[in-house]
Amino acid sequence: MELLTKKFQVRSAINSLSNNKSIGFVPTMGSFHEGHVSLIRKAAEECDVVVVSVFVNPTQFGIGEDLAKYPRNIDRDSCLAEEEGVDIFFAPSEEEMYPKGRQETWVRLGEIEEKLCGAFRPGHFRGVATVVAKLTNIVRPNKLYLGEKDFQQLRVVQRMVEDLDMGAEVIGCPTLREPDGLAMSSRNAYMSPEERAAAKVIYEALMEAKKVAQTGTHSADRVKQALVEKLVSEPLCRLQFVSVCDSESLEELTRLGGSVLIAIGAYFGTTRMVDSIVLSFS
Amino acid sequence: MELLTKKFQVRSAINSLSNNKSIGFVPTMGSFHEGHVSLIRKAAEECDVVVVSVFVNPTQFGIGEDLAKYPRNIDRDSCLAEEEGVDIFFAPSEEEMYPKGRQETWVRLGEIEEKLCGAFRPGHFRGVATVVAKLTNIVRPNKLYLGEKDFQQLRVVQRMVEDLDMGAEVIGCPTLREPDGLAMSSRNAYMSPEERAAAKVIYEALMEAKKVAQTGTHSADRVKQALVEKLVSEPLCRLQFVSVCDSESLEELTRLGGSVLIAIGAYFGTTRMVDSIVLSFS
Repeated sequence: MELLTKKFQVRSAINSLSNNKSIGFVPTMGSFHEGHVSLIRKAAEECDVVVVSVFVNPTQFGIGEDLAKYPRNIDRDSCLAEEEGVDIFFAPSEEEMYPKGRQETWVRLGEIEEKLCGAFRPGHFRGVATVVAKLTNIVRPNKLYLGEKDFQQLRVVQRMVEDLDMGAEVIGCPTLREPDGLAMSSRNAYMSPEERAAAKVIYEALMEAKKVAQTGTHSADRVKQALVEKLVSEPLCRLQFVSVCDSESLEELTRLGGSVLIAIGAYFGTTRMVDSIVLSFS
Repeated sequence: MELLTKKFQVRSAINSLSNNKSIGFVPTMGSFHEGHVSLIRKAAEECDVVVVSVFVNPTQFGIGEDLAKYPRNIDRDSCLAEEEGVDIFFAPSEEEMYPKGRQETWVRLGEIEEKLCGAFRPGHFRGVATVVAKLTNIVRPNKLYLGEKDFQQLRVVQRMVEDLDMGAEVIGCPTLREPDGLAMSSRNAYMSPEERAAAKVIYEALMEAKKVAQTGTHSADRVKQALVEKLVSEPLCRLQFVSVCDSESLEELTRLGGSVLIAIGAYFGTTRMVDSIVLSFS
């Protein structure tokens, strides 16, 4: 495995390694859990060359968000990547990614940026789209792997890659979960034991919503009601939003139909959690 | 020469032709004049493979602008490209470039978009940046050639390519001029003989401004005054803006210093003309 910190090294390593081989890219913020490993394995299954980046991107964190305390475990991450047979491990500094200290050019996506989490994290998806564009332009993958857990992020990147003709296929991979259903996330470690125990209510709420949705009702409101009822039953859960929306456009639905995203954003203490499931209706 | 109309054809032609060869790209709106030919020749001198695109990009034209009447001469353009030894000539349809009929993702550049022409053409540079990003992602050139005539466009593309790590070098090529000094432009053909004769005042004004700037004055206002005096002396010239600004940031200057752009935007009849020169001061 090549452990690289400079953009030019990645470009030249890609050139020398790739020669008509397919390149799979897993962009991450590091602090790997099994979810990351599953993305890397999927890339290794499907591509000749696997590139993983680890970069805690400051431009996607808002003021007052957790940039400073976001977990960093670069040595452990590189060991895990090595074990998984990653070919190129790219861990740039902030200065390498933003040499001018500020970004003047941004990739913007319109309405899809402002929905769900975007309504509560102004500038977040602009930061995500822009850094993924930068990394993708450096790595030039054939396939790009992202988790479905951050579903809006997945859609933003898919739309960007398509709209800007970036020439990669964006592949969403299933959310991995703890035994009690909590979605794996680097941020889970922020929670106290009590908050962590309470957080299982998110998955329970999603399962309740699924049950209601599969009764044959067409009412998105009934599904939302089931979500909210379950979530407010947990005193440690501070609900931010629930959404029942089209899984492509992220437009809120009144009537269930097609591919439907059911999503939750909620705080446990100061830790913000997001989770979602997708259901298909004929 | 391969004459291609589909994105996937360009990607696969690039892959099969390039194999570690350097790729030079000249994105154009067609209707070639000697200025375009000079870009193609420069690309051919410096690169192994030359790609030229012709696409009259609707998203960079405002309401009431000249999209419908913009000159199209694709057969003549492809003949000229063939004569110049171009390897790949890419002439996509609007539907090929914008299959959804609208663009949801945009590349935005902040302040530099709003200056000079940007102040009078809202959305223009957003359209330019986005289509050049799309074309560059398809062609993946090592070097990208643009004329200095549309100087703000050159700076917008240079900054985008740098900020988004697009991995190309953007090369500005000198403006070619008619015998009376008028900058070559596909839009020159719009003018009546009287307007065309009057339009030489633009270059005369730039030369006047250069003379004043080289007297040793440090006053940007004195240079602007010289520009305006000359331009208003021509009754057929309807002045839109003059600018004396830093040639990198496009920030207006009060004191001449460093690399200075002197730029003019003016109408002759309904035809909008832009021109500029760059002067260096120690």
